[in-house]
Amino acid sequence: MLKYRKGLGDMPSYDVVERDWKIKINANECGLNLPPLVEERVMSRLSRVAFNRYPNEEGDDLCAQIAQSYGCDAKNVLLGSGSSEIIEKMFYAFGGNGQKIVYPWPSFSMYPNYAKAAEADGIAVNLSDEDYSLDVDAYIDTVKSSGAGLCVVCNPNNPTGNVLPLSDIEKIAKATAKLDCAFLVDEAYVEFGGESATGLLAKYPHMIVARTFSKAYGLAAARVGYMLADESVVDMVGKTFMPYHLNVLSTVVADIVYQMRDEYRPRIEMMVRERERMYDELKNFDEMKVFPSNTNFILLKYDKAVKLNEYLESLGIGIRSFGSAPRLTNCLRISMGTREEDDTLLKAMDDFVKGRV
Amino acid sequence: MLKYRKGLGDMPSYDVVERDWKIKINANECGLNLPPLVEERVMSRLSRVAFNRYPNEEGDDLCAQIAQSYGCDAKNVLLGSGSSEIIEKMFYAFGGNGQKIVYPWPSFSMYPNYAKAAEADGIAVNLSDEDYSLDVDAYIDTVKSSGAGLCVVCNPNNPTGNVLPLSDIEKIAKATAKLDCAFLVDEAYVEFGGESATGLLAKYPHMIVARTFSKAYGLAAARVGYMLADESVVDMVGKTFMPYHLNVLSTVVADIVYQMRDEYRPRIEMMVRERERMYDELKNFDEMKVFPSNTNFILLKYDKAVKLNEYLESLGIGIRSFGSAPRLTNCLRISMGTREEDDTLLKAMDDFVKGRV
Repeated sequence: MLKYRKGLGDMPSYDVVERDWKIKINANECGLNLPPLVEERVMSRLSRVAFNRYPNEEGDDLCAQIAQSYGCDAKNVLLGSGSSEIIEKMFYAFGGNGQKIVYPWPSFSMYPNYAKAAEADGIAVNLSDEDYSLDVDAYIDTVKSSGAGLCVVCNPNNPTGNVLPLSDIEKIAKATAKLDCAFLVDEAYVEFGGESATGLLAKYPHMIVARTFSKAYGLAAARVGYMLADESVVDMVGKTFMPYHLNVLSTVVADIVYQMRDEYRPRIEMMVRERERMYDELKNFDEMKVFPSNTNFILLKYDKAVKLNEYLESLGIGIRSFGSAPRLTNCLRISMGTREEDDTLLKAMDDFVKGRV
Repeated sequence: MLKYRKGLGDMPSYDVVERDWKIKINANECGLNLPPLVEERVMSRLSRVAFNRYPNEEGDDLCAQIAQSYGCDAKNVLLGSGSSEIIEKMFYAFGGNGQKIVYPWPSFSMYPNYAKAAEADGIAVNLSDEDYSLDVDAYIDTVKSSGAGLCVVCNPNNPTGNVLPLSDIEKIAKATAKLDCAFLVDEAYVEFGGESATGLLAKYPHMIVARTFSKAYGLAAARVGYMLADESVVDMVGKTFMPYHLNVLSTVVADIVYQMRDEYRPRIEMMVRERERMYDELKNFDEMKVFPSNTNFILLKYDKAVKLNEYLESLGIGIRSFGSAPRLTNCLRISMGTREEDDTLLKAMDDFVKGRV
């Protein structure tokens, strides 16, 4: 028997292989590839990459650009392979020795796994059964009583779609500052609605905001995200990254997308309008409870969720079904597709609900 | 004070920023960008990437292709962000709780850092002062007496350039099998000379071979490497990777490079001939000790190494100087550039040695 790291055998494997969906609205991806003007510049930039050279200043250029847009210093920016890797490394940096990490539940499904990988104890604070709202005082109490080294909120929250007002974020920031507990706000979906907490960073140096290019900027394939934080936090979390961890191709693509981010404004507005339309449409299904969303997806609860999902699968429509997952039993999460895709979905749902299938 | 992971503060930071060298032969990179035929297909493939979608089957395609070329199963292949990440994750998988990891020294400079990051104890077995050869019996004894969970050799070795015969590799494999100690052979430079240990994998299921696209295949910018091992090892080490850790762009580029690897044969042969030429040329400097190499670089020892390096830097020529690093004092490592670049280097070295500067 080889001497593997203690606990490694109990870790899950992440083998994500998708079916070839006709309509893929299960992963909160952006439904559209690069805007034409962006595509042109991306391909031109990729054609000038020195594939034979290790990454060098490409990441610095992107950091400088991000810093400028937030009015901070490049030393406040740390890039990662998606905000996912930022979160993983944050958990690692504040983990080990059974340190405590607090997050709401349900939320981003990887939080408990990142905690486990970091050899930390993940502590879930349950969102309300009624509307998935967070009891901020209870959350703060949990951080306090557990002596946590890190607490996290995903805002707007995945998979519930709801948003925590900035006043609540600041309340948590204020309370956790006194507790010397780092406070990470995961803003993967913030472009679709909700106020960003980046304006609070200067005031609360224990606070970190994670952002991604995967959702609103439709760059999930490239795996680029970043965090904004005090220089001391960037330095410490930066130590967890090995040299050359970010490849040049993804970095230069993200750099161009960020330069041209105004090109994304119309499509983000379109996705928000589509979400609003879909919310109104879905509300017409009296059999379902539809939760308000500030993201690019909508969560709903339906007695026959599992059967409905099977029916949709049979049509080649991929949505996210939570089956009997705790606190998400019979919940379905629908990412916004194109209007046409969403209409096809609505028609199929109507057929199912009305018993026409 | 925030509650960072124990030991994190002592970890080094990896901020690799290069000068803008006129001749860059300091990182064992391939001196040439993509071969024209490969470039054409790479750009065509990149233009068909769905940037908005998460990685899916691209990695499986590459694994299947690699497996086919080695006559193994795709389940024996694990992709990483450069073989660097493969090694990092191997160390993690066999680390924690002060487990022991054995490697020769001097060797790849990241081994001790990966050990530290994995919360393992790195144990260096010194190579001989004379010619950097490995005392295989002493190495095996160290693995035995330390009760190591993982032992590593880099073959051919970086930065010394020398090679361990396959019979020695098998001797280590045989001995470590009985000790339940995983045995990793890091073959980053194997394409330039030396026998690969991949043929031994079927016989020794505790053995792992790591390979990279960064050197002979000139793809350092993309960060792609892989390991070959028994399915059980791939499964366990695979657990240390988070979902979507490998981006689509790098994966499809590596996939095409691997499909077209015959295109690289002439340039690899050229680099080997250039190394042989440079070895003969450098041997003419009586003041220097030049070490034989089976890689794309040459190590030499010279009393005035530090001064020579400063002179070369002043000319915009970047080589790797080890300064007063233990066991590498006054050593310089020169990666093979183009013939023209190398001639410029030789001329500058001659000027320095002859006191013309």
